[in-house]
Amino acid sequence: MRIARVVGTAVSTVKEASLVGHKLLLVRETDEHNEVLGPVFVAVDVVGVGPDELVLVSEGSAARHAATTTGQPVDAVIMGVLDSLEVGGTVTFRRV
Amino acid sequence: MRIARVVGTAVSTVKEASLVGHKLLLVRETDEHNEVLGPVFVAVDVVGVGPDELVLVSEGSAARHAATTTGQPVDAVIMGVLDSLEVGGTVTFRRV
Amino acid sequence: MRIARVVGTAVSTVKEASLVGHKLLLVRETDEHNEVLGPVFVAVDVVGVGPDELVLVSEGSAARHAATTTGQPVDAVIMGVLDSLEVGGTVTFRRV
Amino acid sequence: MRIARVVGTAVSTVKEASLVGHKLLLVRETDEHNEVLGPVFVAVDVVGVGPDELVLVSEGSAARHAATTTGQPVDAVIMGVLDSLEVGGTVTFRRV
Amino acid sequence: MRIARVVGTAVSTVKEASLVGHKLLLVRETDEHNEVLGPVFVAVDVVGVGPDELVLVSEGSAARHAATTTGQPVDAVIMGVLDSLEVGGTVTFRRV
Repeated sequence: MRIARVVGTAVSTVKEASLVGHKLLLVRETDEHNEVLGPVFVAVDVVGVGPDELVLVSEGSAARHAATTTGQPVDAVIMGVLDSLEVGGTVTFRRV
Repeated sequence: MRIARVVGTAVSTVKEASLVGHKLLLVRETDEHNEVLGPVFVAVDVVGVGPDELVLVSEGSAARHAATTTGQPVDAVIMGVLDSLEVGGTVTFRRV
Repeated sequence: MRIARVVGTAVSTVKEASLVGHKLLLVRETDEHNEVLGPVFVAVDVVGVGPDELVLVSEGSAARHAATTTGQPVDAVIMGVLDSLEVGGTVTFRRV
Repeated sequence: MRIARVVGTAVSTVKEASLVGHKLLLVRETDEHNEVLGPVFVAVDVVGVGPDELVLVSEGSAARHAATTTGQPVDAVIMGVLDSLEVGGTVTFRRV
Repeated sequence: MRIARVVGTAVSTVKEASLVGHKLLLVRETDEHNEVLGPVFVAVDVVGVGPDELVLVSEGSAARHAATTTGQPVDAVIMGVLDSLEVGGTVTFRRV
């Protein structure tokens, strides 16, 4: 899973029927220090996250294996909110 | 899902039978400001989009989970038209 | 799907049994002007293409969803021959 | 599968229900000399590894095919601890 | 499928049970001239290859569709030994 930061939201009215009701968030991959590594992409939120949270994103077919995404045409889902990250004995990120 | 802009169309007469009837669009990944990030690729349109629209593209096995692509050999499908994108409280894209 | 050009052929005698009988082509991803973008990879041909053709390649699990690749260990299949590509109102490629 | 080194841990309290109970490790891809190649990502540990171990990571749908990850929304799982790597007749890594 | 060269071997004693018995080879992607393009990764050998052979690697869920990998947590499998590669009418690689 990739570490990503929630940076915004996307709105889409005309869309595949099975996507209706999902919250579409804009996220960017980050490293263990919450530094951005890559471009914005869209992930479905199934856990209820807030702005600027660091989250865990599952991609590919894994994205269809959350309780509320079964069989849906999604390829990136936020599966968890990150509380802390620790590398080599040092806490590099802590949720505030 | 990746954000992409519809930039053109592809025509293919000789093709796998299950692809007949699908509209093949040329798209390019963009960032939240509608700036192009990557090369052209081909995505099947299942929602009915127009030229220059910003869209949501699902890839991998997710592409076979739209109502009209079940079991088909497609790996990229346009699943929604983007109305707006907002990053850090600022609207970075709005459909015109 | 990626746009790719057929640049050659691969021969493999010792191989997984289910691959016997498939034509293995060497292809390279191109842009909408038929300019090469990436390295050579191998794709199974299920439509019957000729040398130098521009083709549509489906990857990942989609490659197993052609009529003749069901359940086979292939991850890239040529699903169609491209007749033309059009970007922004201009034809950028036409099959000759 | 990619070779990766275990560099730390991730803690996530609010998460998809099926992820509860899994140990989330931070790993980085390495080469055959245990030199880091890429950024940190998160993998589920199903074999019981220690800090700084070199491990084998399966990604994509393969991550759901360990005995304890069946049907779960994970896309990267540590499937084995590496004891040694040998390239061209030379041992490039040995577990200590 | 990617073209890759067998460059070595990996040994893993502590691993997911379903991986026991598989030969784990180190491979690197190459181009049509057998020139290395990318870093070392690990692929399961299901055809019986020797050192320095050029091989065909299937990745993703395709890796689970060899006769001996069904349902196993592998994401890269050597599916064939390459005898020759030909690009633009010229043989660029021939097995010796």
